[in-house]
Amino acid sequence: MAKALKRPQIAPNEAARLFRETRQRTEDLAAPLAPEDTMLQSMEDASPAKWHLAHVTWFFEEFILKPQVSGYRSPDERFAFLFNSYYVQAGPRHARDRRGLVSRPGVDAVMAYRAHVNAALGDLLASDRTDPEVAALVELGCHHEMQHQELLVTDLLHGLSFNPLLPAYRDPEPVAVSSELPLRFERHDGGLCEIGHDGAGFAYDCEGPRHKVWLDPFEIANRPVSNRDWIAFIEDGGYTRPELWLMDGIARAGREGWETPLYWWKQDEVWWTYTLRGPQPVNLDAPVCHVSYYEAEAFARWAGARLPTEAEWEVALGDRPIEGNFLDDGALRPLPDGGPWGDVWEWTQSPFTPYPGFRPPEGALGEYNGKFMVSQFVLRGGSCATPRAQMRPSYRTFFYPHQRWQMLGLRLARDA
Amino acid sequence: MAKALKRPQIAPNEAARLFRETRQRTEDLAAPLAPEDTMLQSMEDASPAKWHLAHVTWFFEEFILKPQVSGYRSPDERFAFLFNSYYVQAGPRHARDRRGLVSRPGVDAVMAYRAHVNAALGDLLASDRTDPEVAALVELGCHHEMQHQELLVTDLLHGLSFNPLLPAYRDPEPVAVSSELPLRFERHDGGLCEIGHDGAGFAYDCEGPRHKVWLDPFEIANRPVSNRDWIAFIEDGGYTRPELWLMDGIARAGREGWETPLYWWKQDEVWWTYTLRGPQPVNLDAPVCHVSYYEAEAFARWAGARLPTEAEWEVALGDRPIEGNFLDDGALRPLPDGGPWGDVWEWTQSPFTPYPGFRPPEGALGEYNGKFMVSQFVLRGGSCATPRAQMRPSYRTFFYPHQRWQMLGLRLARDA
Amino acid sequence: MAKALKRPQIAPNEAARLFRETRQRTEDLAAPLAPEDTMLQSMEDASPAKWHLAHVTWFFEEFILKPQVSGYRSPDERFAFLFNSYYVQAGPRHARDRRGLVSRPGVDAVMAYRAHVNAALGDLLASDRTDPEVAALVELGCHHEMQHQELLVTDLLHGLSFNPLLPAYRDPEPVAVSSELPLRFERHDGGLCEIGHDGAGFAYDCEGPRHKVWLDPFEIANRPVSNRDWIAFIEDGGYTRPELWLMDGIARAGREGWETPLYWWKQDEVWWTYTLRGPQPVNLDAPVCHVSYYEAEAFARWAGARLPTEAEWEVALGDRPIEGNFLDDGALRPLPDGGPWGDVWEWTQSPFTPYPGFRPPEGALGEYNGKFMVSQFVLRGGSCATPRAQMRPSYRTFFYPHQRWQMLGLRLARDA
Amino acid sequence: MAKALKRPQIAPNEAARLFRETRQRTEDLAAPLAPEDTMLQSMEDASPAKWHLAHVTWFFEEFILKPQVSGYRSPDERFAFLFNSYYVQAGPRHARDRRGLVSRPGVDAVMAYRAHVNAALGDLLASDRTDPEVAALVELGCHHEMQHQELLVTDLLHGLSFNPLLPAYRDPEPVAVSSELPLRFERHDGGLCEIGHDGAGFAYDCEGPRHKVWLDPFEIANRPVSNRDWIAFIEDGGYTRPELWLMDGIARAGREGWETPLYWWKQDEVWWTYTLRGPQPVNLDAPVCHVSYYEAEAFARWAGARLPTEAEWEVALGDRPIEGNFLDDGALRPLPDGGPWGDVWEWTQSPFTPYPGFRPPEGALGEYNGKFMVSQFVLRGGSCATPRAQMRPSYRTFFYPHQRWQMLGLRLARDA
Repeated sequence: MAKALKRPQIAPNEAARLFRETRQRTEDLAAPLAPEDTMLQSMEDASPAKWHLAHVTWFFEEFILKPQVSGYRSPDERFAFLFNSYYVQAGPRHARDRRGLVSRPGVDAVMAYRAHVNAALGDLLASDRTDPEVAALVELGCHHEMQHQELLVTDLLHGLSFNPLLPAYRDPEPVAVSSELPLRFERHDGGLCEIGHDGAGFAYDCEGPRHKVWLDPFEIANRPVSNRDWIAFIEDGGYTRPELWLMDGIARAGREGWETPLYWWKQDEVWWTYTLRGPQPVNLDAPVCHVSYYEAEAFARWAGARLPTEAEWEVALGDRPIEGNFLDDGALRPLPDGGPWGDVWEWTQSPFTPYPGFRPPEGALGEYNGKFMVSQFVLRGGSCATPRAQMRPSYRTFFYPHQRWQMLGLRLARDA
Repeated sequence: MAKALKRPQIAPNEAARLFRETRQRTEDLAAPLAPEDTMLQSMEDASPAKWHLAHVTWFFEEFILKPQVSGYRSPDERFAFLFNSYYVQAGPRHARDRRGLVSRPGVDAVMAYRAHVNAALGDLLASDRTDPEVAALVELGCHHEMQHQELLVTDLLHGLSFNPLLPAYRDPEPVAVSSELPLRFERHDGGLCEIGHDGAGFAYDCEGPRHKVWLDPFEIANRPVSNRDWIAFIEDGGYTRPELWLMDGIARAGREGWETPLYWWKQDEVWWTYTLRGPQPVNLDAPVCHVSYYEAEAFARWAGARLPTEAEWEVALGDRPIEGNFLDDGALRPLPDGGPWGDVWEWTQSPFTPYPGFRPPEGALGEYNGKFMVSQFVLRGGSCATPRAQMRPSYRTFFYPHQRWQMLGLRLARDA
Repeated sequence: MAKALKRPQIAPNEAARLFRETRQRTEDLAAPLAPEDTMLQSMEDASPAKWHLAHVTWFFEEFILKPQVSGYRSPDERFAFLFNSYYVQAGPRHARDRRGLVSRPGVDAVMAYRAHVNAALGDLLASDRTDPEVAALVELGCHHEMQHQELLVTDLLHGLSFNPLLPAYRDPEPVAVSSELPLRFERHDGGLCEIGHDGAGFAYDCEGPRHKVWLDPFEIANRPVSNRDWIAFIEDGGYTRPELWLMDGIARAGREGWETPLYWWKQDEVWWTYTLRGPQPVNLDAPVCHVSYYEAEAFARWAGARLPTEAEWEVALGDRPIEGNFLDDGALRPLPDGGPWGDVWEWTQSPFTPYPGFRPPEGALGEYNGKFMVSQFVLRGGSCATPRAQMRPSYRTFFYPHQRWQMLGLRLARDA
Repeated sequence: MAKALKRPQIAPNEAARLFRETRQRTEDLAAPLAPEDTMLQSMEDASPAKWHLAHVTWFFEEFILKPQVSGYRSPDERFAFLFNSYYVQAGPRHARDRRGLVSRPGVDAVMAYRAHVNAALGDLLASDRTDPEVAALVELGCHHEMQHQELLVTDLLHGLSFNPLLPAYRDPEPVAVSSELPLRFERHDGGLCEIGHDGAGFAYDCEGPRHKVWLDPFEIANRPVSNRDWIAFIEDGGYTRPELWLMDGIARAGREGWETPLYWWKQDEVWWTYTLRGPQPVNLDAPVCHVSYYEAEAFARWAGARLPTEAEWEVALGDRPIEGNFLDDGALRPLPDGGPWGDVWEWTQSPFTPYPGFRPPEGALGEYNGKFMVSQFVLRGGSCATPRAQMRPSYRTFFYPHQRWQMLGLRLARDA
C-alpha cells in the first residue's frame, strides 16, 4: 500500500459520509447540464463533463473495488480503458485529446455506472470488517473527485466559451455592491521556518515532508490584485511592453494575441467577462482571474513588486481561517473579498518541485503528483471552483505558466 | 435570381412532395442517434449531425423564407451565424472546426427549428400564389439536404470510429452470400462526344453546360475494384512501392501511416472493417471503399490500367439505369453488385474544373460549387450513402485527393 | 532505354556543343556568388545554388557515365546520396529540406566535381563510337540543367529576399522608358484542334502524345496582365473580396497575409519590388510577376475574364516566333513586351494531367514528370529566368496553386 | 550604469589583456571553418558561426563604443539590426530563426568588422582616461564572448551533424586509455549554508546575491554518470519505461524518437557517437553527454538516486580547484576524469529562478539573464566547450529540460 497513505487513518463511518457528500456534490454540479453539454472538449487540457463523471468513478473501482471486493463486476470492462486518465501502471487508456469523441456510453449510462459503484462501495464501507486502509483509499478517492469537481466546472466554462451564444451554466444573479480595498503590504521577518504537511489528516504526497526553509524578511499584500488594478496595467500598455515580461511570456502573448485576461472583451467602453453565469460586466473590486503565470509575473514587475514564493505564502497566510468564496458557496466567480482562501488561486514564483525528502508511493498512485514535477508553478489558496473541504494550509496546486482557463489570480509580495 | 436555376421548372406540388420526403428522410436518419452522438466532430472536414440537421434548415430559411415571406421570424436570429456553412455573401459564420463545441441549442431545439421551418415552408408551398422560382429554390434546397444526408452518415461513421467501443449506428445484419465477378474490360470508340447536363430537370450549375469533348478509343471495367483485388495489392507491397505512386501520394501515405483503406484492420488473419453497422469482416466481393485518390491512382498503375476520365465514365456508363445500393436501401455499406450506380463513388482522373462556358449564378448561391474548383477530383456514380433521388448521368461530386472518409472506390480503365 | 527518348536523335557533335554551352551558362550564373550565397535554402521548395551545381552534374554521372563508361570513378561515391533529388529508383537520397545544411563539400569541391564530369563526358562524346542513345541522354541532361538554371536564379532570389539588406545578385541597371500597351482580345474559332509535341526534336515525355482536343470559340489577350493592371486590382480591394476567390485561395491569402504579389512593398506612396538586381520601383508596363494561381484566377474573375486553358494557349500562341526576354538576355526581371514568350510564365486554368495515351518511360527517368501529375497547374511561355533553348510550343511547366517564388504571371482569356 | 556591474572593478590594462585573449580565442575557433560552414543554422536554438562572430562584436559596439566614443562610426549601421540577439531595449532585430539566411555580409566582411571594433576598443582601452566603468563593460563583453565561444562550437556540431558525410571540425585524435572509476557517494551535513556570488571579481547578475539556504544532509557522487552507466540504462529498457520518467519527458522522448543520447548510433554491436572530431566509438569511461534534463532525471530515478539541487552542488563541490577538460584544452569532447569542472555541464534539479533579493540592472543589459527565468533548469560545472576563464563556483548556466545539443551530463545525489 502506498506509503503516502500511511497516516493517521480516517474512521470508516467518516469515510462513508465523505463519500456520500462528495458523490452528491458532483451530481449536483452535473444537474444543469444537457447531454450535449457533457460532450464538450475544447482543448486537450480540458475534458468533457461526462468523462469527469466517469473517471472519478473508475478511480474508486480500479483502486478499491477491483482489488478489495472479490467477485466485483464492472458494468463494462472496457470502461477501464475509456476512463483511466494517466495512470500508466493501471493499464492502457484512451487518447486524452479524443475524450470528446466518445458519445457512447451516453450520460445516462455513466450515471448508472456511478450508481453501480456507489452501491458496491456503500456495501464495502457498511460492513463491519472495513479495512482502515480501504477507508484511507476512499478518502483519497473523494479528494480526487473534489479536484475533478473543480475541473468539471472550469472545463465546462472553457467549452461553453466557444459557443457564440455564450450560454450560462447557472442563472445570472446580481452582484452585491462592493468598495475598493486599498492595497497594503504586511511585513514578515522570515528566518528559519517550516512548511509542508505535518502528517495529521489527509494530504497529498507532494505536500510533505514538512521541512525547513530559510526566508529573508519580506512583505505580502493584504489582498489579491483586483480587476481595477489589472485595467490600470492594460491601460498602461502592460501587454505590449517587453521589458515587463519574461521572454517566453511575451512570445506566447504575441502568438496567442493576449491583450486582456481570458474571457474579457470591451463593449461600449465597458469591460465584460464571460462566466459560468453568462456574460457579466467586470467587477472592479473582485480579484482578477484567468491570468497566466506569464501575465501575473509581468504585472508584478510593472507594479514594482514580485510574486511570493510558496513558502512565503504558507508562512504568511497559511494559518488564516479557511473561509472564503468556494465552490460550495455557488457564486461560481470571484467576488470582492481579500482573504487568502477561495475566489482565485494565487500564483507563486515557485516551480512545482519535490520537497526535500519527497518520495512518491509505489505503484500507480505514485503517479498522482510526482510525474508532473517539471515546468509547472505552484498556486495557493483555492478558488471559487474549489470545494472547501479540499483546502488546508499545505495544499499545492500547479499549472503550466501559459495556462489561463482555471480560476487563476495573484497576490503581490516584495523584499522587506 | 440565379441563372443556374433558370431551367424547366418543377411544379409547386411536386416541390412540396419532394420537400416532405426529403425532410422526413433526414429525420429518419437522425432517429437512432442519442443527443451525445449528434455532437461528434472528429475533424474539420466532418460536421456534427446536429449541425447538419440545422444547417439544411437554415438553407431554406435564408434563401427562401427570409426573402420571400414577409414577416417571417426565425426562432433565433443567431442561428444564421451558427448554421451558415461557407456562404460568404450570406453573412459571417461560426468557425467550421468548432461546430462540435456548440452544445446549445441542443438537438431538441434543433428539431423544433426544423418543425418551425417546415411549417412556414409548407404554408408557402400550399398557397395558390407559389412563385415558380420558389419551387425551384425548394428543389435546390432538397437536393442540398440530400447531399447533407450523405455527409451526415459518413461524418457520423468517422466520428464514431474514434470510440474504442466501435459502436454500431444500425444493428449488424447478415451479409448475403456472393460470388466473385470476373473483371472484364469493355471497349468504347470515343470520338467527338457530348457530356454534361442538357438542362432538362434539376442539376447543379457545375454539371453544365453540355459540351463537346474528344475521346480516343478506350476500355472500361465491368465492375468496380473489389476488396479481393485490393488485398492482392496490399499483399504485393502496394503501399510501400514508391514507383506505383504519385509523389504527393506516397508522402501522404507515409505521414499518415496508410497500409490499408481507412477503417481496416487485421485480426487473427482476417481483414475487418468498421462500418455503420459496426465491425464486420471485409466482404471480398464488395467494392473497395474508403480509399483516397492517391491510393486509387496507385492501384490502377499496379494493375496496368488507369482511372477513367469523367467524360469516359459518363459516355460509357451514364446511360445505364440508375439502380443500385443507395442510402434508401439501408445497407449502409457497399455490397457486391457491379453496376455503376450506388455502392461507392468512383474516382476519375479528372480534376474538378469548370466545363467550357460555365458561369456560376450571381449572389451567395453562386458559391455553391464554383469556389471549390481547384485541387479536387471528380467522382461519379453515387454510393450506398447517397439518396437515389440525387443521381443523374451528369452528377459530379468532388473531393481532395487525400480524403478517404466518404464512400470512395474506383473502376479501372485503359487505352484501347 | 526510356521510350520517351526514342525520338529522332541529336547528332553527337551537336550534343557535345549543347553540353559545353549549357555547362558554361550554369557557371556564368554562379560566378557572382560568394561561397556563403551558395548555401542559402529559404524553404523546402528551394535549393541552395551549390546543390543545383552539384545535382545537375550528378544527373550526367548517374544516367550516363556510370552505366556507359566502364571504369568511371566518381570523385566521391557519397555524392550520389547527397545530390540525387527525387529519383527513388536511383537510390536513397538526402532530405530535401536539409540541403542547406550541407556545408561540405564546399563550392570549390563542387566546381571540381563539375570539371571531373565535364572531362569524362567530353571524352565520351569525342570518341568515334558515341552511341546515339548517349547523345540523346546528354541532350536530356542539358535540358535538365537548363531547368535548374531557372531554379538556381529564382531560388537565389528567394533566399536573398530574407536578408534585410536586400542585396543585389547583379548590378541594378536603368529601366528603359516604356508606354502602356492597351489590352485587346483576339478571337479564335476553336474546333477540333491538335496539341502536344509531334516527336520532332527534343521534348519531355509529358509534352506528348500529340492529340486532338475540342475547343469552343474563345478570345485571348494580346499581352500579359501588367503591373498597372494589378495595382488597379489591389486598389479595388481585390485581395479582400472573397467573392472573387477560390475558397482555398482566400484561405491561403489570409493565412499568409498576401496583399500584393510576392516581393512588393509600398514606400512613400510608390510600389517597390525586390529583384535579382536589388530593390526597384515597380515598372507599371511590365507583366506582373510572382503571383500564385489563386491570385491569377481571382484577378481574372475581377476583370470579367478567365485564364486560358493550356490548349487555348498553345493553339492561339504556340506558333508565334520564340522571341522575348529570356535568361540569356540578362535582364533578370520582366520587361514591357507583350509577346507570349519570356518575361513571365503564364498560368493556365489547366491542371497538370497526363495527355491521352501518355506513358512515362521505364526506370528512374520515368519519374521525371509523371509522378507530379496531381494538384499542380500548367503554365506556358517561359520567363526571364528561362534559357531560350528550353522553349518550344509544347513546353509545359507546372506549379502548385499557392506557389509564387517563380517568375509567374498571367494572360486573360474569355469565351467568344 | 547597471547595478550588477557596481563591483570591485577590473583594472583597464587587465581588461585590455582579457579583451585581446578572448577575441583571439574566438578567431582561433573559427580558423578551421570554410565560409560555407559559417552559414549553418540547423534549428532556431542554434546560430551560424558567422552570426556569433558578428554578434559578440556588435555587443562591444553597442554597449561601449557607441555610447562612449564620440564620433565612432560603425562599418555598417545596419549591422545593429542584423546582429542584435534579443536585447529589446537595444532596438529591433532580425528574426532569430533566419540568421542562416544572411549570406551577406560574408565571413570576410565580418572579420573586417571584428578588426574595426578591435581597433576602436583597443584605442579606448589604451588611453589614459579609461573609465573604470568602461573596463567593467569590456570585462562583461569578454565573458559574453566566451559564452558564445561555447555556443559557436556546440551549434557547429549540431549543424554539421545533419551532413550525411559527418565531417570533422578538428582532426580525430587517439583517445587515451582509461579505466573505470567506481561510483561512490560522499556525505554532506547540510544545515544553514550560503551560496551565490559574494561580489568579489566578475559574475553575472543572476549569480547573486549571496544568500542563506537550508540543506538537509545529503550525499553526492564522486564522478559524473559515465557512458558505461548510461548503456546499462539503455539495456535495461530505460527509454521505454514510463514509470521512470516525468510525463512531459516520456512524451517528448516518444515524439522525437529518443532511444539514446543525441548523436549516438549502434554499428556492428558497438556504440558510436558524432563529435567535433568526427565519428568516434563511445568512450565507456567518459561522462555521458548530450542528454536532456528529462533523460537525466529518469536515469537518476532508475539508479535509485536523484539529481542534486544547485545549492547542494555548490556547497559540496564549489570549492574544488577549477581544473578539468575545458575548451582551452582542445579535446572538444568529454574525457574520463571525474572532477566537477569541465567535460560536461551537470544538470541539477533546480529550476532557474531568481535568488532572493535578485534585481537585474536597468536598461538593455538587464535583459541578459532575468528574462529567461522560467521553465529552464540550472547546470553547474562547465564543459569541454567552456573556456576555463568563465568558470567560478557560483556560475549558473541554464537550459530547457528537452534540450540536448549542448555538452550536458549529470552527477547523482541522494538523501543522506
